[in-house]
Amino acid sequence: WTVKSVEGIPVLTREFEFKNFAEALTFTNQVGDLAEEVQHHPKIVTEYGKVTVDWWTHKIKGLHKNDFIMAAKTSKLGD
Amino acid sequence: WTVKSVEGIPVLTREFEFKNFAEALTFTNQVGDLAEEVQHHPKIVTEYGKVTVDWWTHKIKGLHKNDFIMAAKTSKLGD
Repeated sequence: WTVKSVEGIPVLTREFEFKNFAEALTFTNQVGDLAEEVQHHPKIVTEYGKVTVDWWTHKIKGLHKNDFIMAAKTSKLGD
Repeated sequence: WTVKSVEGIPVLTREFEFKNFAEALTFTNQVGDLAEEVQHHPKIVTEYGKVTVDWWTHKIKGLHKNDFIMAAKTSKLGD
């Protein structure tokens, strides 16, 4: 995970690689399920063979402990 | 749909709004199924209450008739 700045807001971001679109979309859904469980939602970019996940906390316009926890959980799904 | 330039490549793009994350993700899956049917794949950005879909043709680094067809089919799903 790296931190990028999006319109001045720090965002945790990571790319995950897959064999094709279907596998990428499966991962997107797994991350989506994780997000729904805790009602904290990332931005997920689904492409052929690649998913990019961004975690940050809208309310504080930055990174909260929860974002790092969600990033770790996302990695567990994707690695 | 509008045309935006991504690294010099023209891309058809449109945002679709939803009530929450779950409904956005459902739409992402519908667009994904559409893409798998014809093995032509967009970039789909899934966020809370919003999905952004980009269609273009990698091989020609631009827009092909198929992209406009897929955009129209995507709109049918989202409207």
